[in-house]
Amino acid sequence: MAGPLISLLTDFGARDPSAAICRGVIWGIAPEARLLDISHEVTKYAIRDGALLLWCALPYLPIGVHAAVVDPGVGTDRRPIAIRTVRGDHLVGPDNGLLLPGADRLGGVEAAIELTNPAFRLPVVSSSFHGRDIFSPAAAHLALGVPIGDLGPSIEPSTLVTLGIPEPVVDRGRLATSIVYVDTFGNVKLSALIEDLEAALGPLSPGDPLRLEIASHGQAAGSTLRVPWQDAFGHAGEGQPLLYQDSYGRVCLAIDRGNAGTQLGLVDDQPVLVSRDATTGG
Amino acid sequence: MAGPLISLLTDFGARDPSAAICRGVIWGIAPEARLLDISHEVTKYAIRDGALLLWCALPYLPIGVHAAVVDPGVGTDRRPIAIRTVRGDHLVGPDNGLLLPGADRLGGVEAAIELTNPAFRLPVVSSSFHGRDIFSPAAAHLALGVPIGDLGPSIEPSTLVTLGIPEPVVDRGRLATSIVYVDTFGNVKLSALIEDLEAALGPLSPGDPLRLEIASHGQAAGSTLRVPWQDAFGHAGEGQPLLYQDSYGRVCLAIDRGNAGTQLGLVDDQPVLVSRDATTGG
Amino acid sequence: MAGPLISLLTDFGARDPSAAICRGVIWGIAPEARLLDISHEVTKYAIRDGALLLWCALPYLPIGVHAAVVDPGVGTDRRPIAIRTVRGDHLVGPDNGLLLPGADRLGGVEAAIELTNPAFRLPVVSSSFHGRDIFSPAAAHLALGVPIGDLGPSIEPSTLVTLGIPEPVVDRGRLATSIVYVDTFGNVKLSALIEDLEAALGPLSPGDPLRLEIASHGQAAGSTLRVPWQDAFGHAGEGQPLLYQDSYGRVCLAIDRGNAGTQLGLVDDQPVLVSRDATTGG
Repeated sequence: MAGPLISLLTDFGARDPSAAICRGVIWGIAPEARLLDISHEVTKYAIRDGALLLWCALPYLPIGVHAAVVDPGVGTDRRPIAIRTVRGDHLVGPDNGLLLPGADRLGGVEAAIELTNPAFRLPVVSSSFHGRDIFSPAAAHLALGVPIGDLGPSIEPSTLVTLGIPEPVVDRGRLATSIVYVDTFGNVKLSALIEDLEAALGPLSPGDPLRLEIASHGQAAGSTLRVPWQDAFGHAGEGQPLLYQDSYGRVCLAIDRGNAGTQLGLVDDQPVLVSRDATTGG
Repeated sequence: MAGPLISLLTDFGARDPSAAICRGVIWGIAPEARLLDISHEVTKYAIRDGALLLWCALPYLPIGVHAAVVDPGVGTDRRPIAIRTVRGDHLVGPDNGLLLPGADRLGGVEAAIELTNPAFRLPVVSSSFHGRDIFSPAAAHLALGVPIGDLGPSIEPSTLVTLGIPEPVVDRGRLATSIVYVDTFGNVKLSALIEDLEAALGPLSPGDPLRLEIASHGQAAGSTLRVPWQDAFGHAGEGQPLLYQDSYGRVCLAIDRGNAGTQLGLVDDQPVLVSRDATTGG
Repeated sequence: MAGPLISLLTDFGARDPSAAICRGVIWGIAPEARLLDISHEVTKYAIRDGALLLWCALPYLPIGVHAAVVDPGVGTDRRPIAIRTVRGDHLVGPDNGLLLPGADRLGGVEAAIELTNPAFRLPVVSSSFHGRDIFSPAAAHLALGVPIGDLGPSIEPSTLVTLGIPEPVVDRGRLATSIVYVDTFGNVKLSALIEDLEAALGPLSPGDPLRLEIASHGQAAGSTLRVPWQDAFGHAGEGQPLLYQDSYGRVCLAIDRGNAGTQLGLVDDQPVLVSRDATTGG
């Protein structure tokens, strides 16, 4: 019989021992747990990045306990929480918006509590490492079958902190979206899903010419790109850009065997207008 | 009883959730599997690097299933494959040369198939993430004991794509080789093994003076180095270069407690001529 | 029944296959072992960094075998060793000071041996990868219950190599310390613990104004900082510096949601004088 699954996502970094200490605390309580690291290299303090990674990953993980810590507010009055999802998972982490997009992908929030019961914390709780002192013990006890209600008082789900992720705007012939993540391949992920893009532009076929008007943001300059819609990187041709639907249904900009983020100088939060390109025949 | 071993090697990067999603898919099918990450930081798209890492690692891993994904051609007509080795392992990945050097180290290819059977894929197969949709499910089912022939039709092994790794050339008194990998210590690995070098120069002893003529390649300038043959980094002296046999029998250039790659400005594919150095007494 | 715990800490890097090969060797001998990676991204050759990470991590890990390899002297006459701690753990690695601070945190050294018995090594021992050839097999056999005395002859603990970590100096009203580690958040860790600081300055309260005189070291310039003592990053205010007690009781300098190391240009080994700041009212 395989042990219960506990996944971990943090911005602790692989060089420091913090992620390992969380695993150590968990195995001290639940030695049979199967541990699955989603990522410990989330950009420091980037709550939205962490939320987006959970949104991608959780539907592909077995039902289990998922502890996530991107927590610049550690030690202040932000609440430490646990959530039970409709799918049957438990999510554990700070109440700063990190957990909710992932919870939505698991059917939504069925119950939420604040992690206050000292019986399910380490004996000493520091002000800077709740991953070790609160979240890992909570995850381990939940994995062992402790009912979520034993860990602390109920929270009304509508009071949970949410992230202000800007929604794409669908117009006839034009989609207004923005960059939400640039992955380690340099693939540039937009806030829009394929349904949004096709609602704006109609059905898309490989080779359809598109126009991207990318606005400046912070240090990053604006630009206008003409790129084809494609169904595979390799169909663009080495070094050529393409717009495509990524494996989560999200609209992305890439360069075949290149790095769109660095080669095109693109960064998070740049606004992007997508339309069909009338100037070429495709 | 320990569960079956499944190893993973990819260029997905530790920040993104892709490697974790592969683990999640595997544990959804084979919850008892023991997962061993070889690397997820292979240089993007560097098929030869991935092949070389498998060549190093696989002989030291227990018999198991080894899934490897460095796959710039994902979604094009390159074949997804599984291989059974003479040692009894299964290798899973794209048919782009990535798997063959590792398979050779496990006794060679005993059988190969194309992964076409939809019963052993995820229900929806994307065009950009076959690691999740095809390779991880195949690895999990093979680990559970599904016969390789159930996963798809046989492939004639001689039709598998091979990498054009240049072989070293042994002359009397001179070895022509090239740089194939620079590791994270900056140790510069050549295509030649110790047998090649001793075939060219005769038996080597610690302190023997050698001459390396390194040709320019791309941005990297050429240079000539005089370095001793050594049997341990620390015998060169801090900051001093040495040529040595690495722990896989490969000829390597290093700097004791330094980084030969960056300090000497060396990169992959620079040609290197090695001879004995007549200008010093050793 | 959960398998025995084996933790690993190295400077091998996540890109190269060395850490995975250690896991493979361990599972070849002890297939039931639960493997816990503390870090494989220790700064290359930085024995003190590795020692400090073990000091942080080991008290939070279950009793087990802990193999650590930061080993610039591999292949020279430095001894490969195993230690049994008073808590009941076994530590395995090179005799270069790496293991002792962690052993102290587990009650101290109860016994030590030199790893000489070839029955508990790989059949061929290279001169550059004792992690694979000596330390991983030793760790696996110890995890299986082989008595430490079977692995080699006793070593007198007082002969083990120690690191020269400079101790903080407590004066009335002034603490002389130095930077020992900068973590991946840029938090700057001092050699002093909270007890040292309060011995010098008396009890500290959030908001107490402090003065840091940081001396130059190597390339890094000196500077004088005025920072408050705080109990949580978020109480400093975004972008503001703070001195605080980290979750291991160590005195640290941080910037709320920033990176103190890079923003303030601080590096390891800079001397730091800490006193109360008389020029502000706090």
